[in-house]
Amino acid sequence: MRAVGVVAEYNPFHNGHRYHLQRAREISGADVVVAVMSGNFVQRGAAAMFNKWQRTNEALHNGADIVIELPFHWAVQPAHLFAQGALSLLSALQVPDLVFGAEHEQTDFTALARVGINDTQAFKTFNETYATLFNDQLESQTGFRLDQPNDILGYGYAVANSRLQTPLNLLPIKRVGRDYHDSLLDNSGYSSATAIRQTVLGHRRGVNVAANVPAETFADIRHLTPMAGWSPQMWQLLRHELLMTPVASLHEVYQMSEGLEFRLKEAAETQAHWDDFLTAIKTKRYTYTRLQRVCLYTLVHAVNAEMVPGQPDYLRLLGFTTAGQNYLNVYKKRFTLPLITRFDQTLKKTTLNLDYRAGMLYEMLTGQAQDFRHDPIRLES
Amino acid sequence: MRAVGVVAEYNPFHNGHRYHLQRAREISGADVVVAVMSGNFVQRGAAAMFNKWQRTNEALHNGADIVIELPFHWAVQPAHLFAQGALSLLSALQVPDLVFGAEHEQTDFTALARVGINDTQAFKTFNETYATLFNDQLESQTGFRLDQPNDILGYGYAVANSRLQTPLNLLPIKRVGRDYHDSLLDNSGYSSATAIRQTVLGHRRGVNVAANVPAETFADIRHLTPMAGWSPQMWQLLRHELLMTPVASLHEVYQMSEGLEFRLKEAAETQAHWDDFLTAIKTKRYTYTRLQRVCLYTLVHAVNAEMVPGQPDYLRLLGFTTAGQNYLNVYKKRFTLPLITRFDQTLKKTTLNLDYRAGMLYEMLTGQAQDFRHDPIRLES
Repeated sequence: MRAVGVVAEYNPFHNGHRYHLQRAREISGADVVVAVMSGNFVQRGAAAMFNKWQRTNEALHNGADIVIELPFHWAVQPAHLFAQGALSLLSALQVPDLVFGAEHEQTDFTALARVGINDTQAFKTFNETYATLFNDQLESQTGFRLDQPNDILGYGYAVANSRLQTPLNLLPIKRVGRDYHDSLLDNSGYSSATAIRQTVLGHRRGVNVAANVPAETFADIRHLTPMAGWSPQMWQLLRHELLMTPVASLHEVYQMSEGLEFRLKEAAETQAHWDDFLTAIKTKRYTYTRLQRVCLYTLVHAVNAEMVPGQPDYLRLLGFTTAGQNYLNVYKKRFTLPLITRFDQTLKKTTLNLDYRAGMLYEMLTGQAQDFRHDPIRLES
Repeated sequence: MRAVGVVAEYNPFHNGHRYHLQRAREISGADVVVAVMSGNFVQRGAAAMFNKWQRTNEALHNGADIVIELPFHWAVQPAHLFAQGALSLLSALQVPDLVFGAEHEQTDFTALARVGINDTQAFKTFNETYATLFNDQLESQTGFRLDQPNDILGYGYAVANSRLQTPLNLLPIKRVGRDYHDSLLDNSGYSSATAIRQTVLGHRRGVNVAANVPAETFADIRHLTPMAGWSPQMWQLLRHELLMTPVASLHEVYQMSEGLEFRLKEAAETQAHWDDFLTAIKTKRYTYTRLQRVCLYTLVHAVNAEMVPGQPDYLRLLGFTTAGQNYLNVYKKRFTLPLITRFDQTLKKTTLNLDYRAGMLYEMLTGQAQDFRHDPIRLES
């Protein structure tokens, strides 16, 4: 029994994701597809459109056999840490192959990862300008740039992979459909998650996205309750916290460095709206994505000790098919991290406390009960 | 030029308050009526129906000449501290007389205040059962009980007064109209503030309260925007804070004693609605009013050092008439506390920081700009 791994956010799960899972199975010859997926909050510091249980269900019906949660401390991070977390979990799950989509799937990512890039400063600033910095160095050494988001993430996987004790085989495939950042629906049926979200969440309400998503996602879309995003719900909570919390407590928050806590507090005092707040705190030094992540860290009061790599990690099982269950039964003794199938009071207070807090925030915003109310989803296949 | 003092919340200002101001002027023979009024949050730990500038305006048009804010650290406290703060401010303002309404205005409150009551435990628990405790002792010594809310508050004034270096003359008057706690509108035109609030805020929407309030209050009622009360707005902010803040930080909050922080955090984890939360945290030990105040302290993160008596105090001027201005000009050099007429960055960061935070909370809840956007109201009379 052989497994293949994929890494995803599924925000929401669409036809491109289904194609990715099919191809992963085909080219690896695997019996079981393991997806490592962000939880209720995604990499750019925002709430996912559907909760992790809904997105797990979408994935299990469309090609995934096992869904493992990428914990908050890996999922809400810049790309290189997101990649590092995901690969370390797949490695712990004894998955030998990783299939990922790339704009230029012929690229030898493993070779690129060997090019010596001085990323000290990039790691320090945790900024998206990492890409620019990296590309400047890469170009000077190879004459080659990685400008596309999935290519860059592929490079991140390759770097993370090179640091694993037993690296995975990296199998890039051609990404289908529109650009990741493209916000228009595509006639081909392969629209981006961004386009689907923007259509569904109101920018182009009324346009039917059914041709772009599997039936399970479409059912979730049909029952979508108004989403609690940054504006205004999360912003209200953040503003209150910034106004009332002493700067010394704000300073404890992960990535709240270089006096950012004063900048955020001051902006909260003068700005009543999220967009104005973001504009007020923006500088050349920080990208919007980084700032939005810091805002999310603040909302869940994520401190350094909870976010930096090196702490006890775990494999949080969100769902599985019959094939997935077989894999778990056969391999779980070889897993190098504990497999967590059931949430409880001890986990809440210890290793999973940050995920729990993120879950409670999501629960507050959506009214959808999270960790204590769900066992892993089991799909007979 | 002689002044008389009154203490009030004006939530909202009604005909009974106007009568109180008229009578205060008459029986004291004063030229100027000084009202010490709660700010944006009232004694029982709730947001006032109208902001402090609106309520100041209502009062100035109906008999008050000077309105001074009772700071948050005095206003949101049990009755004995509320009274102590108000009287200390009137004393600092060189006001010789206090006129207050009582159910039994013939009571010799000053004499009652001399009865030795052992209030050590009452002061320690800061509980409304203070009244019961006090009455049991009072009855055993005098055969007399004080069961009515304004009588009890009158006793509080008398006790606070007895501790002043130069006590005021206490002039109780008969309270007109319905009971304080009565929630029904009265045909006499003297309905309680509770009845007016409940009518206006929706319990009996459609009933016209015009006969019970002066024109200025009625104008405010007509332009009332939906009020942000505990449920759901303040509760959402509180729940988020309770869920995310470490217990050690919660423990810093004033009156968060005896493990109450654990009780509140646990209830926030399991209760999604304000009423259910309150029920979950209620014990015999704490009244709802005390718990609601602790919740408000938590929301503004009011710590011990900011709330206990003994810190630098001040006279925050909210508004004045021409007569009031004359009084201020003549007497201000004799005031024993600093008169604050203009809010600024220094005050925000120092003595008025807690009032500022309470103002920002009110501003967030209502969208009505507070301290930085208002100079004292000046009414030509």
